[in-house]
Amino acid sequence: MSTDPATDVRDLALRAREASYELALATRAAKDAALHAMADALLGRRSEVLAANADDVARAEDGGTPANVVDRLRLDDDRLAAMAQGLRDVAALPDPVGEVVRGSTLANGLELRQVRVPFGVVGMIYEARPNVTADAAGICLKSGNAVLLRGSSSASASNTAIVAVLRDAIGSAGLPADAVLRVPADTRETVTALMRARGLVDVLIPRGGAGLIQSVVDGSTVPVIETGVGNCHVYVDAGADLDQALAVVLNAKTHRTSVCNAAESLLVHADLVDTFLPRVVTALQEAGVTVHGDDTVARLPGVERADDDDHAREYLSLDISAAVVPDLDAAVAHIRRFSSGHTEAILTRDQGAARRFVAAVDSAAVLVNASTRFTDGGELGFGAEIGISTQKLHARGPMGLPEMTSTKYVVTGDGHVR
Amino acid sequence: MSTDPATDVRDLALRAREASYELALATRAAKDAALHAMADALLGRRSEVLAANADDVARAEDGGTPANVVDRLRLDDDRLAAMAQGLRDVAALPDPVGEVVRGSTLANGLELRQVRVPFGVVGMIYEARPNVTADAAGICLKSGNAVLLRGSSSASASNTAIVAVLRDAIGSAGLPADAVLRVPADTRETVTALMRARGLVDVLIPRGGAGLIQSVVDGSTVPVIETGVGNCHVYVDAGADLDQALAVVLNAKTHRTSVCNAAESLLVHADLVDTFLPRVVTALQEAGVTVHGDDTVARLPGVERADDDDHAREYLSLDISAAVVPDLDAAVAHIRRFSSGHTEAILTRDQGAARRFVAAVDSAAVLVNASTRFTDGGELGFGAEIGISTQKLHARGPMGLPEMTSTKYVVTGDGHVR
Repeated sequence: MSTDPATDVRDLALRAREASYELALATRAAKDAALHAMADALLGRRSEVLAANADDVARAEDGGTPANVVDRLRLDDDRLAAMAQGLRDVAALPDPVGEVVRGSTLANGLELRQVRVPFGVVGMIYEARPNVTADAAGICLKSGNAVLLRGSSSASASNTAIVAVLRDAIGSAGLPADAVLRVPADTRETVTALMRARGLVDVLIPRGGAGLIQSVVDGSTVPVIETGVGNCHVYVDAGADLDQALAVVLNAKTHRTSVCNAAESLLVHADLVDTFLPRVVTALQEAGVTVHGDDTVARLPGVERADDDDHAREYLSLDISAAVVPDLDAAVAHIRRFSSGHTEAILTRDQGAARRFVAAVDSAAVLVNASTRFTDGGELGFGAEIGISTQKLHARGPMGLPEMTSTKYVVTGDGHVR
Repeated sequence: MSTDPATDVRDLALRAREASYELALATRAAKDAALHAMADALLGRRSEVLAANADDVARAEDGGTPANVVDRLRLDDDRLAAMAQGLRDVAALPDPVGEVVRGSTLANGLELRQVRVPFGVVGMIYEARPNVTADAAGICLKSGNAVLLRGSSSASASNTAIVAVLRDAIGSAGLPADAVLRVPADTRETVTALMRARGLVDVLIPRGGAGLIQSVVDGSTVPVIETGVGNCHVYVDAGADLDQALAVVLNAKTHRTSVCNAAESLLVHADLVDTFLPRVVTALQEAGVTVHGDDTVARLPGVERADDDDHAREYLSLDISAAVVPDLDAAVAHIRRFSSGHTEAILTRDQGAARRFVAAVDSAAVLVNASTRFTDGGELGFGAEIGISTQKLHARGPMGLPEMTSTKYVVTGDGHVR
C-alpha cells in the first residue's frame, strides 16, 4: 500500500476489475462451490474471526460506545453460524447472470436477446455490523460482481479477519480471491476515493444511517443506489376494520423498532377521532410508545406535541408521530410531504379508497391491510437482500440478486447491414 | 420569474412535480388523446414555430455557426411533420405505466405485485436539435412523467415556441400543461440548478456531446442516465466470412458517420494481415475514410499512424482507427481498454469465438455478424427512443418507454402482521 489513500483505493479497484472479468464468466456451479467454501471457512476458522472481533469489541467498550452499538458489533458462535448459513442460502438461489429478460427475432432475421450480466465492481460503504461483510460478499459473488468492502473503522479487525477467510476460500475454490477486497477504514479519504472512482467502480451501495447515505449521495460521481431510510406511514381510513387496524399499527410500530420498515408515522381519518384515535393512542402508550401528536392528537393524555421535524423523523425507537387528516387525499398529501419513499400502508375495507391510495402514493412499497414490516426481501420471498432501495432508478424496494445485475443486448445476424 | 436562476428552476420543478401527481394517474386514453392534440397543434401552428426557428437560424448564421450545426437546428415543413408523426407513433405504443412486472401470492396469503410507475419528474439537458423537444415531451408524457426541458441557447426561440404549442395542446386535452416545462437557456446556472435539484427531479438525461454528458455526470446529485457516446468496435476474427466482414465494416463506418452507433475502431485478427487487412483498408479509403492504424496497419499506403487517443476516439466522421490483434482475447482486452461500452461487433463463423466474445465483452450491445448500426431503438423494435444508455444502472442500450419508468411493490393483505 502506498501512503496515498486515493491511490490505494484505485489499485484495489483495478484488482477488483480484473477479478470481475473472470467472475462474470464463472458458472453457477463454480460460484455455488465458492459460497459453500466461504461458509465452511467461516466456521472452520471461527476462533480467528472471534478473536479479531473481541479486539473490536474491547476497543469500542473502552471508547465508551453505547451498549446497543457494541451489541451490533459483537460476533458469537450463533452469529457466525448465521453468517455461514446466509452464504449457503445464497448458493441455493438461482443465478441471475445469463437470464434472458426478453428476446425476439426481428423482421430482418436478426435474433435479439436481452441478457442479465453482472455490474462488474460494486462498492459497499457500511456501518458497524460485521455480518454485512459476509452477506455482501456472498450476494456480490453469486451475482458475478467483484466487491470493494468499506466497513466502519470500529469493525476493522473483524472485517479484516472475515475478508481474509473469505478470500482464501474463494481462491481455494478456484475463483479469483480479488472478487472480495477490503478497503482500509483508517481514514475517511478511502470513502471519498471510492465515491470518485467512476469508471472503476460501477455502483456504490451505502448502508447505514441517513447521514452516511446523504454524504455518499452528495459526493459520489459513481452511480449510487440509495437504501434504507424509512419514515413509514400507516393511514387508518374511515373505512378500516378497527380491530385489524389496531393490531397492524401495534405490529408495525413495536415488532422491531430499529429497522427501516418500522412505522414511524400514524395518520388517522377525522371520522375516527372520537373512536379509534383514543383507543390506538392508549394501546401504543401501553406498549411503551411515546406518541408525538398534532394539535388534535395532542389533546389526548400523555401525548407530546409534534412539529414538522417529528412528522419527518425516522425514530427507530418506541416513538411515533401521529396526525388526524380530514380525508384520504390529505393523507396522501401528508405522505408526499414527509415520507422517505420507503413503505406506506392503508387500512381500509373501502375498495375505492385502497385503489386510490395505491395509485397516488409513490413509495417503494404500498401496502393494503398489512403491516409495514413486510417490506423485506425475506418476507417477500426474494431470498437474500443487499438492502432496500428508496430511489426510483434501477431498483426500488428490497434488492435481491437480480437487482445486482445489469443487462446487455446480444444481437446475432448473418452479415446483416443497414 | 425571479432574478435568481436557481430559484426559477426550483419553482419550475415544483410545478412539474404537482403536474406529475396528476399525470401518474392519467389513463392511456387521456395520454394518447393529448399526444394527438400535440401533433395536431404542431402542424396547425407551424408558421409560429417556423418563424421562431428562422430567428434561431439567422442568429446562428450571423454568429458564424458551422453549416452542419445550423442544418441540425433548422426546421422545415418536413421536419415538423416528422415531429408530429413521432408523437402519433408514441401514442400507438403500449402504456408502460401499470404493467405488472411480477406478482405472486405468498405463503401467508399476502398478494404481491410489482407494478411499473412513472419516475415523476424527468430533466432533459440537450443540445441544438429542436426536434428533441417534441420527442422528449411525447415520450415523457406517455410514460406518465412531467419533463423539464433544458435545450441549448442556440435553439431558444424554437424551443420556446414548440413548448408553448405543446403546453396549450396538453391543457386543451385535459391534462396539466405543466407536464411540459421549458427551463430557460440564457445561463449555464439553470443547468447547475437542475443538476442539484435532488428530491425535486427524479432523473436527469443529458443528450449531446461527450463534454456535456461528462459535466452532468460529474456535477449532478440527481441520478443521471448517461447516454450516447459510442466508440464502437468491429472485430474481424480469423474465422470471419470475409465478404460479409467487408460489407459490415463499410456499413458500420460509412452508412451514417455522425451517429453514436457508427463504427469508430476496427480490429483485425493477425491471421488476416496479408489477406483481409489490405482489402478492407483499400475499400474504406475508396469510400473516403481516413484509416488511423497501429504499427502493422500503418505499413499500408495512405494509413495515418494511430496513437491511444485515436483508439479511444469517437470520430463521428469519415475516420476509423484500426489495429491488428494476435487473437480474440487481445481483441477483448483492446475493447476493455478503449471502448465507451456502447456497441461492439464480432464477425466470425466460429461458434466458439462468437460465444466467447459475447460473454467477455461488456457493452450495452454485442453483435455477431451484424453492423453496429443496429443498436437503435427503432431498429430493435422498441418504437420511440429517448436515448441510448451507456451506463449499467437502470437501463442499458436503447431506452424506450418501459425504461422511462420505475416500479413499486403493491402488497395486499387482510390485516396481516408479523
